[in-house]
Amino acid sequence: MAIPHAPPGQAIDIRPLGPELSAAVTKTLIKTDRLEVIRLVVPTGKTIPPHKVAGAITVQCLEGRVEFTALGETREMHAGQMLYLSGGTEHSVKGIDDASLLVTISL
Amino acid sequence: MAIPHAPPGQAIDIRPLGPELSAAVTKTLIKTDRLEVIRLVVPTGKTIPPHKVAGAITVQCLEGRVEFTALGETREMHAGQMLYLSGGTEHSVKGIDDASLLVTISL
Repeated sequence: MAIPHAPPGQAIDIRPLGPELSAAVTKTLIKTDRLEVIRLVVPTGKTIPPHKVAGAITVQCLEGRVEFTALGETREMHAGQMLYLSGGTEHSVKGIDDASLLVTISL
Repeated sequence: MAIPHAPPGQAIDIRPLGPELSAAVTKTLIKTDRLEVIRLVVPTGKTIPPHKVAGAITVQCLEGRVEFTALGETREMHAGQMLYLSGGTEHSVKGIDDASLLVTISL
């Protein structure tokens, strides 16, 4: 099934999902040949094992808390924090609380 | 003067500036050869005239409200909204309230 993504110039809602978070799933919000933006849903205790992507990424915590591991360090991220990784950097994520992350991939 | 930017993997605070917004200035938070992230401060009434950048961008309103004009449309953006533009798309911004925007440029 084709997934509709936002066209350029159209505003997307990236506010915290709040009470809807527990039933939410990961969703690609923007997808072009240069740029991809994903809202990654990470429930409490869920681990996304080490992986990497070709392009540079930013990771922004929209709500909840996660453990984010990369470059030999594990750090806690909570709402209002962002970090970036160069392309090809292995990283993993674990939900401390139910969380959602905005991941922007520069392709 | 060299401006310090965050190294990869280090969390950056992108929460609303709140009462500190009125004295804040635009700041580049991340700058690499592939990726640039800027917190753009747009005071009430200030206009950033039409301009464009080579790479695809996302624009996220962190606080306040702006008028964002691109692709022949002017729309209001408030906190929790994001949009993207392909590289080379002319756009302009005007502060409705004091606002800050997170601009991510994919180079």
